[in-house]
Amino acid sequence: MTTALPARLAAFHADGADRYGVVTDEGIIDLSQEFGERFKGLKEVIEQGAIDELMRAAEGRRPDYQPDAVTFLIPVANPEKLICVGVNFPSRNEEYKDGQAAPDKPSLFIRFPRSFVGHNVNLVRPPESEQLDYEGEVTIVIGKGGRRIAREKAYEHIAALTLCNEGTIRDWVRHAKFNVTQGKNFDATGSIGPWLVPFRDAAQLDDIELTTRVNGEVRQNDRTSRMMFDFRYIVNYVSTFTTLVPGDVIVCGTPTGAGARFDPPVWLKPGDVIEVEADGIGTLINGVEDEHHGTD
Amino acid sequence: MTTALPARLAAFHADGADRYGVVTDEGIIDLSQEFGERFKGLKEVIEQGAIDELMRAAEGRRPDYQPDAVTFLIPVANPEKLICVGVNFPSRNEEYKDGQAAPDKPSLFIRFPRSFVGHNVNLVRPPESEQLDYEGEVTIVIGKGGRRIAREKAYEHIAALTLCNEGTIRDWVRHAKFNVTQGKNFDATGSIGPWLVPFRDAAQLDDIELTTRVNGEVRQNDRTSRMMFDFRYIVNYVSTFTTLVPGDVIVCGTPTGAGARFDPPVWLKPGDVIEVEADGIGTLINGVEDEHHGTD
Repeated sequence: MTTALPARLAAFHADGADRYGVVTDEGIIDLSQEFGERFKGLKEVIEQGAIDELMRAAEGRRPDYQPDAVTFLIPVANPEKLICVGVNFPSRNEEYKDGQAAPDKPSLFIRFPRSFVGHNVNLVRPPESEQLDYEGEVTIVIGKGGRRIAREKAYEHIAALTLCNEGTIRDWVRHAKFNVTQGKNFDATGSIGPWLVPFRDAAQLDDIELTTRVNGEVRQNDRTSRMMFDFRYIVNYVSTFTTLVPGDVIVCGTPTGAGARFDPPVWLKPGDVIEVEADGIGTLINGVEDEHHGTD
Repeated sequence: MTTALPARLAAFHADGADRYGVVTDEGIIDLSQEFGERFKGLKEVIEQGAIDELMRAAEGRRPDYQPDAVTFLIPVANPEKLICVGVNFPSRNEEYKDGQAAPDKPSLFIRFPRSFVGHNVNLVRPPESEQLDYEGEVTIVIGKGGRRIAREKAYEHIAALTLCNEGTIRDWVRHAKFNVTQGKNFDATGSIGPWLVPFRDAAQLDDIELTTRVNGEVRQNDRTSRMMFDFRYIVNYVSTFTTLVPGDVIVCGTPTGAGARFDPPVWLKPGDVIEVEADGIGTLINGVEDEHHGTD
């Protein structure tokens, strides 16, 4: 499963400033000085179709930072939309054990960027619940906007790939009759990253392996070829109701095996380490800490 | 029900530019030239606590525009969050006729700003459905951010009030087992406005009348004192999971009487005019048109 990764883009904090640059196996080349006036962040790089320009600018340059010396940020800090696909792997539907057939349309919900942290940053367990759970997911970033994008053209609209640990406060997703909003939007309970891998070839998405490990133990493992709603369908379906724009993020659904499905359930706790890995995209790693909470 | 409105703030398009200013019964005083460098839009006015400063700057000035000469925009174009409260009036829960008791926590969902148009702009009925429906709602805009805001302090965090026609594509809210996302997020199917009324007194929220009319016929009519989850509770509950920031918009729930509840249901159609009115806030008026749709 370990293959060499292509050059990729990351957003990070280092030396007192938010920065972005190109990541290779040698380290991180900071490009925010050179391009900062043109592109405030990676969303603007994507909007202006400048991924390849950044890649070229980094060629042959020595790294400015090593990954362990920076704080990774979520790659697109302020997408116009951040949409998540619910139940999207075959055995995931069966986990619900409610006797209903698999749905013929995807379940969708929305998360705010502040519910996510970057790679290598701890997820935060809030004092309101002990039910912090993981969900590893392949995530696409839109490069070319559009409405009612045809399935066969969908891949032309994807600029980059990343990963998401779509961390969830389980008891809060069932606070109301409908909608999982509150359990999916506690501040800093999920993560996105580590970086953006430019999307150039259908093989980067069509049948890749997706694995989630907790403290080294495999908890989720499946292949994207088994998704009930594939990436092309998702882009087509979502763009039916809303106009997609560059930088929009779609988190595409998790395999079976979240902690809620164990008997008894197994929740994340401080000190745990969760890894979400996908072939060709990389490994998103996060610890867990308890919130040092305040009130207002 | 018609009482004089205080001076209020509006965002609008006129003479080729997006503008903002103060609205009085005499007309609109454009302040975007004077304040445009400090505040890009009304979100920035709220963030910097400058509502009163704009009000003072407009005092005694003659209007630059009459309301019918401008195109109203949604007051906060790009809130960090736009959260909607579902079922929140007593008879609304009974409408669902599913035999379940009223929930003890509110249902919440999220809409993207592009699902809304401003005052006096037509709602757009997409070709995918004939089930465009209205929902009139009182809407609050956060002025002072916070996390876990106490109920008794909640009103201190509200900067302004507005109205929402939380227009919905009914068949698409039931596409999936959970979550109403897609039926609530078709582009331009709802509206927010007409303006922001500064919030200065609990009496502006505690027990105001809210009415929705379609072509002059009253369809929804109730009072905010009957809300199952009152405004203070909503601010407290939402801020439990997410940090509220200035400019965040919360749409607080609709009374019984949406078109879906008629037998047979009555959907909106081109030429209809929907008015959402609340005492002290004003009247949000929108027509309906069919989408001139494209594909990509």
